[in-house]
Amino acid sequence: MITAREISRRVDRIHSSMEDEGVKALLVSGPRNVAYLTGRDTGRLLLTLKGDFLWTRELYHEVYSDLYFDPSYPYEIGIYDRDAIKKELTRLRLKRPGIENVSVLACRSIEDALKVKPLVTDLVERQRSVKSKLEIELLGRSADIAVKGMKKACRVVRCGVRELDAAASIEYEIRRLGSDSPPFEEGLLLSSGADAADIHAKPGFKKMRKGSLAVVDLGARYCGYYSDMTRTFKIGKVDREARDIIEFVDSLRGEAIDRLAVGDRAAGVHSYIEGRIEAKGFRFYHSSGHGVGLNIHELPNISERSEDVLERNMVFTIEPGIYVPGKYGIRFEDMVLLGKNKAKVLTRYKL
Amino acid sequence: MITAREISRRVDRIHSSMEDEGVKALLVSGPRNVAYLTGRDTGRLLLTLKGDFLWTRELYHEVYSDLYFDPSYPYEIGIYDRDAIKKELTRLRLKRPGIENVSVLACRSIEDALKVKPLVTDLVERQRSVKSKLEIELLGRSADIAVKGMKKACRVVRCGVRELDAAASIEYEIRRLGSDSPPFEEGLLLSSGADAADIHAKPGFKKMRKGSLAVVDLGARYCGYYSDMTRTFKIGKVDREARDIIEFVDSLRGEAIDRLAVGDRAAGVHSYIEGRIEAKGFRFYHSSGHGVGLNIHELPNISERSEDVLERNMVFTIEPGIYVPGKYGIRFEDMVLLGKNKAKVLTRYKL
Repeated sequence: MITAREISRRVDRIHSSMEDEGVKALLVSGPRNVAYLTGRDTGRLLLTLKGDFLWTRELYHEVYSDLYFDPSYPYEIGIYDRDAIKKELTRLRLKRPGIENVSVLACRSIEDALKVKPLVTDLVERQRSVKSKLEIELLGRSADIAVKGMKKACRVVRCGVRELDAAASIEYEIRRLGSDSPPFEEGLLLSSGADAADIHAKPGFKKMRKGSLAVVDLGARYCGYYSDMTRTFKIGKVDREARDIIEFVDSLRGEAIDRLAVGDRAAGVHSYIEGRIEAKGFRFYHSSGHGVGLNIHELPNISERSEDVLERNMVFTIEPGIYVPGKYGIRFEDMVLLGKNKAKVLTRYKL
Repeated sequence: MITAREISRRVDRIHSSMEDEGVKALLVSGPRNVAYLTGRDTGRLLLTLKGDFLWTRELYHEVYSDLYFDPSYPYEIGIYDRDAIKKELTRLRLKRPGIENVSVLACRSIEDALKVKPLVTDLVERQRSVKSKLEIELLGRSADIAVKGMKKACRVVRCGVRELDAAASIEYEIRRLGSDSPPFEEGLLLSSGADAADIHAKPGFKKMRKGSLAVVDLGARYCGYYSDMTRTFKIGKVDREARDIIEFVDSLRGEAIDRLAVGDRAAGVHSYIEGRIEAKGFRFYHSSGHGVGLNIHELPNISERSEDVLERNMVFTIEPGIYVPGKYGIRFEDMVLLGKNKAKVLTRYKL
């Protein structure tokens, strides 16, 4: 699906950022950055203004030969071993490489090998936050699967059904529709009653009960691209306070999305949502959203301390929530594509 | 399921290691280390010989009050904010804290706050590699679900079935049997024919074909504890070479397990498996196994450069594999518990 030509365009854009930011060489080892820049899930990269290198295990030279040896593919391909990267850096006389925010020990081992303190940069992550035409198409398909999963949820989230059984049915549907993997690392979130006040509560053995609420937070993955959405379901007739908060949170989701514009500070978006929830008399316990792409959580961060600014063709979530310990949790989340003039909801689905 | 008393025992053992290794304070933020030491999935910890602190969001003080305020629970509970940890370290005059192998930027921010270079230690991960009685019970239950999933695989991995549909059915079964989450971060691995030569190939839209092989690598998660096993299925009648390699890899799995003993060097176990595969005329492209617990991959590493030594009550996998590009992949994997005299297979299942 991802062509050598698309990979080549992505690498060209990285080169421009490297020039702009004075980064002469960039080591890439983060799995999703590697996937973004190579089209496959394996290997280590060295990008420089003098040439680009991809080292992978020998097995993959055969398994991925169609892509790796396509004339448009931008890399010189080598066999991965611990010394290959060091040798190449020395040969190119590139003394201070940029690296991702890797682990301390990984950083120290690069430091020891090159006798220089590497520069930590998120330039690949920043580029990934603005999506290409192909990426927008894949994210749209991923979102379509999520919406179908939510339709399934609407049928199985019912009084008397065990949370786990409902989750299993929804995951089954999402997987059969072509999702690369189950939704999220730990599966979808589905919890009802007081348990839903735990933001990350997982489905349990208990049966869903009449008069309670159930939060379903799900997504899919298509050609590597995630989707993410949340709805809160009423199981039977619920009390007035619950109905009122549901109505409030769902409307707030819509209003926050309608206000989105290119150039907005992400922290400002968060502050609007938090302010509205606090004015209603509740506290807001999590961030207002996150970018979605090859990671389920990526840039931009829509949170209090975020320094991100919203750009055209960013794809991210907006997810206000209210949690009342001992009673319930209520969250609504949509994934949106920010266009020139307004945001488009990719996970359109009305309960 | 995890009691305050069990948590207290775990923390006591950490204190002993800290004393042995001269670590006066230990900051813990890795999600699975936090889960291991608190019984819940959230918060930041500071363990010291003068007292232990857990900071979480205020919401969780109510949601997890039964555990947090149990008299046996070993922590002083505080509300998480960025300055709380720094203040406490200053108050206790603990100048050089131990940290996990966190990201470079996380480490630098601790460095900036405390004006000291923290010591990176894996003492929590090392303790986690040796399992308690309760952990062994939970891992056993997790393995039982995996075995039932493999029985399901045996029924659905058939000629004419799409890989994705087979994967969806197996995941559905595993989830309904009580798995906390789908197997592994990216779902189970199921691939057939030449695709299986890619070690990490995911299930696709294609139908499985007569005369080919299918690798199914699956697991479950029970009260947070993973399980992991792999079988290679013959779809109809396969050629002699394939039958021969299947027989070889499966026997090698059993022989390597029978040889395991307390005190073995993990690198020696790997070298035995690699040597046998090379003597057969193939190369071995991955590690021979890994510890399993709250992470799907944890200590010990059964690989070439590992410095781990096998101890009683470690739980880990043994997984020889042979991959022939353009033809097939063959892997067999079991999860074992190392006892005083021999290893016990937790994922016993004969095709």
